[in-house]
Amino acid sequence: MEIHRTAIHCQTSGNTDVIDITPQVTEALRGSGIKEGVVFLFVAGSTAALTTIEYEQGVVNDLIRTIEKIAPQNISYQHNLRWGDGNGYSHVRASLLGPSLNIPVTNKKLLVGAWQQIVLLDFDNRPREREVVVQILGN
Amino acid sequence: MEIHRTAIHCQTSGNTDVIDITPQVTEALRGSGIKEGVVFLFVAGSTAALTTIEYEQGVVNDLIRTIEKIAPQNISYQHNLRWGDGNGYSHVRASLLGPSLNIPVTNKKLLVGAWQQIVLLDFDNRPREREVVVQILGN
Amino acid sequence: MEIHRTAIHCQTSGNTDVIDITPQVTEALRGSGIKEGVVFLFVAGSTAALTTIEYEQGVVNDLIRTIEKIAPQNISYQHNLRWGDGNGYSHVRASLLGPSLNIPVTNKKLLVGAWQQIVLLDFDNRPREREVVVQILGN
Repeated sequence: MEIHRTAIHCQTSGNTDVIDITPQVTEALRGSGIKEGVVFLFVAGSTAALTTIEYEQGVVNDLIRTIEKIAPQNISYQHNLRWGDGNGYSHVRASLLGPSLNIPVTNKKLLVGAWQQIVLLDFDNRPREREVVVQILGN
Repeated sequence: MEIHRTAIHCQTSGNTDVIDITPQVTEALRGSGIKEGVVFLFVAGSTAALTTIEYEQGVVNDLIRTIEKIAPQNISYQHNLRWGDGNGYSHVRASLLGPSLNIPVTNKKLLVGAWQQIVLLDFDNRPREREVVVQILGN
Repeated sequence: MEIHRTAIHCQTSGNTDVIDITPQVTEALRGSGIKEGVVFLFVAGSTAALTTIEYEQGVVNDLIRTIEKIAPQNISYQHNLRWGDGNGYSHVRASLLGPSLNIPVTNKKLLVGAWQQIVLLDFDNRPREREVVVQILGN
């Protein structure tokens, strides 16, 4: 049993940017040589999150609209009053979606659905350079 | 340290069907022979999710109603306009809830609460045959 | 490769109490001696959850307000009608947020963001003694 760690770096535009990182995760898996195991993903930072989605622009927009309804940008947030950085909504969204994910691997492939991509969501109110930690455990 | 992989197959009715898969996960754990470790769960597909809940019909209905409020079925979704399959709400719900979970194991038992069951949620708008990947890591 | 298990015990006040458990997770990591690996966290019970957040009172209050909007305490829940314990909203909130999390470890440190803390959320309607299971895998 081995564990490999690498990182995916993404330049985002912020503002609930939703980025398909499946190609980079697949590349990391190939680089590890692991055949059977689990991929663990984690995004460092308190205004970003990870999930899976069918990555087509229609659904991505539908998800963004729903998240905007749950934690609207243009209402008052105590975080903004205290820190003045205007991204209270970004923090709330990130906490609701969550920073971690695990994906099974078999026969050197990610066991995701045919229409299921892995996405990074950047909720911050400005462009950011993000790091997603990829750990691959297995044989 | 070993890792075992198996799968749970469920015939669902779709339409936010919530299915208790704790018995099947428990059975998979027994079959693995693992005493101490972690169970990793993942549902392949972009219209299903996993979580835990006290599996009694009252709370299950309460959860379904809340999810219906967050991402209603009968509003317009861009996904539906593009693909015509009418399940835009299913995709949004699945992305919000998330496809993966990990559960600790000690002394050959799942370390869940007494009233905490593991559930598969099928948000698609039709019956589906679902696969939940179960990986059991440990000794 | 080794796996270590320990538990964090928290006395909470319930009522969507949000508790920073990063110091205890860090202490558990130190105790394990693991240098490279993954920390798996799980809260047993169906009215609590785990996530990450910038732990300052403004954002914590913003998150609590958002969760209250998603699953309000003072509406009718079928769970309450059946069981009379008044915490239907607590169960719904816990299922939406989820009970598990994984955090990468490198060079004996949690790879979280500078302003990203690990939190336990207790949604129950009364004080509780909670156990968060901590499993540390690695070398």
